[in-house]
Amino acid sequence: MSLQHIRGELPMVYVNVVPVRVDATGQVTEVGLLLRADDDAISRALIAGRVLYHERIRDALIRNIEKDLGGVALPRIPASPVPFAVAEYFPTKGVTPFHDTRQHAVALAYVVPVDGDCEPSQNALDIVWLSPEEAGSEEVASDMLGGQHTLLRQALAHCGLIA
Amino acid sequence: MSLQHIRGELPMVYVNVVPVRVDATGQVTEVGLLLRADDDAISRALIAGRVLYHERIRDALIRNIEKDLGGVALPRIPASPVPFAVAEYFPTKGVTPFHDTRQHAVALAYVVPVDGDCEPSQNALDIVWLSPEEAGSEEVASDMLGGQHTLLRQALAHCGLIA
Amino acid sequence: MSLQHIRGELPMVYVNVVPVRVDATGQVTEVGLLLRADDDAISRALIAGRVLYHERIRDALIRNIEKDLGGVALPRIPASPVPFAVAEYFPTKGVTPFHDTRQHAVALAYVVPVDGDCEPSQNALDIVWLSPEEAGSEEVASDMLGGQHTLLRQALAHCGLIA
Amino acid sequence: MSLQHIRGELPMVYVNVVPVRVDATGQVTEVGLLLRADDDAISRALIAGRVLYHERIRDALIRNIEKDLGGVALPRIPASPVPFAVAEYFPTKGVTPFHDTRQHAVALAYVVPVDGDCEPSQNALDIVWLSPEEAGSEEVASDMLGGQHTLLRQALAHCGLIA
Repeated sequence: MSLQHIRGELPMVYVNVVPVRVDATGQVTEVGLLLRADDDAISRALIAGRVLYHERIRDALIRNIEKDLGGVALPRIPASPVPFAVAEYFPTKGVTPFHDTRQHAVALAYVVPVDGDCEPSQNALDIVWLSPEEAGSEEVASDMLGGQHTLLRQALAHCGLIA
Repeated sequence: MSLQHIRGELPMVYVNVVPVRVDATGQVTEVGLLLRADDDAISRALIAGRVLYHERIRDALIRNIEKDLGGVALPRIPASPVPFAVAEYFPTKGVTPFHDTRQHAVALAYVVPVDGDCEPSQNALDIVWLSPEEAGSEEVASDMLGGQHTLLRQALAHCGLIA
Repeated sequence: MSLQHIRGELPMVYVNVVPVRVDATGQVTEVGLLLRADDDAISRALIAGRVLYHERIRDALIRNIEKDLGGVALPRIPASPVPFAVAEYFPTKGVTPFHDTRQHAVALAYVVPVDGDCEPSQNALDIVWLSPEEAGSEEVASDMLGGQHTLLRQALAHCGLIA
Repeated sequence: MSLQHIRGELPMVYVNVVPVRVDATGQVTEVGLLLRADDDAISRALIAGRVLYHERIRDALIRNIEKDLGGVALPRIPASPVPFAVAEYFPTKGVTPFHDTRQHAVALAYVVPVDGDCEPSQNALDIVWLSPEEAGSEEVASDMLGGQHTLLRQALAHCGLIA
């Protein structure tokens, strides 16, 4: 039984993270986006990853943030496990704003302030920090795949930052 | 002691409501906007009003929805009193996305499905029902005052409807 | 590849529903609990069920509510897909307040007002409507399995109903 | 025009804060309660205070936390201004679970992790840190006034910590 096989049978549990820098009043000052190289094209992405069997969502958040931002990012995992949004990625386009050719994934999405140094690791070429205005722009949206710009804008809206 | 005088001394408690039509799965199909004529100009607006002394937020929601949509709108007040957003209207521009020359108002914002007939009453010329896409457009945004288009987009984002 | 096999390998996506009756102001007046007979014992339960492959959460909510309350319950699925809580059921006790011997399930939990007639179907013996106070009591808690009374109390708290 | 006079005419905007200690995964490990001496009796209380004219909620949170925990508590104000609960304190008992003889106050409630040293200041005799279980107990509830134990339990429920 392969993971690839199961992916055609059941929805997978994911976490999506929008890493942010905040000031002393908690206001978001910068949004972090990963720069990825997939299939010859450069794209911007949120932190995303599976929740493993017998893994708490909190632990999946820590693990996936470390995977993409390194071990000294000092993420502030929220005290409440309630996500700000649920992104339903479908293998078929148009069912929801979210799309993933590989699978049906249900992603719980969180805004996570990070205080420490962030270093791109594994698949990411770089981490770029943008102002909330830049992050919500059409230009950035056009560099994101699978509808993640929709989730990014939902995050900005949740933080009171969308114009 | 006049209300006008107090408005220069204390923040006022408001409710803001985004009325919506939903289908059987709860998905928002239409967003209602009021057409108002203020100071020679036509603008689009959300339902807004004060919470009165000794009035529960639930009752303020009902009262203000009836004021703007009439008595047979059949609003579905949420079971939870937690707002999807808090809009802080300041008399000074630029402190937050929200602005009200008359006062400092803290508005608790709710998305409220309405099932019944809606008739404009009092200050509203008309109620227009738009698709979520239209409601979130730049064109509609330019017809709204005081930053209410920001709140409208926050509502769409909360309902998973922003692109 | 059997479902039973996968259940030992991956977390499953579930929905949990607390059905409620509300008054005209949206205030919860009654909470519905299913009466189930499992393994010789009678227990009280929330509505629960899997999200299927290529099924939206909204559609999973409708389907599972119909399964347990019948086809004329007229559920009011929320306009926003954000759950009030995420219940992580682990096959091992003590990791979270939630426990399921069969699997690791991540359940998105919703409070859903129902307006129509509810009839127990399939596994449920009956549906009992309790006041919020009764629903939150120790007596009811002792009749619920897998930590569901914790989720029920979270729902009451979310609706401002816990004492 | 005195504040006392206005308090009989209009609802006041408040913030309520549940200060917590969290571990690296964001899980709440301790809840902070203020020990107050009012009218000969000792009571436990949450952080509470008015939002001033032309003050953002974020700034009111900082100011009121500093007032009660001192200047080096290092509070982590949430990135999102959406409260986990809205507590409506009425001068009359029984309208809501919340009661304040002086006024009608609408309090936006937040769970705020604090990292630094906390020192009681002004009205508080001491700050006591309790486990979530202790904080939610009947014993602690009986030491709290105006329904604040209800809000405390709502906070615990929101963080997935209520049994």
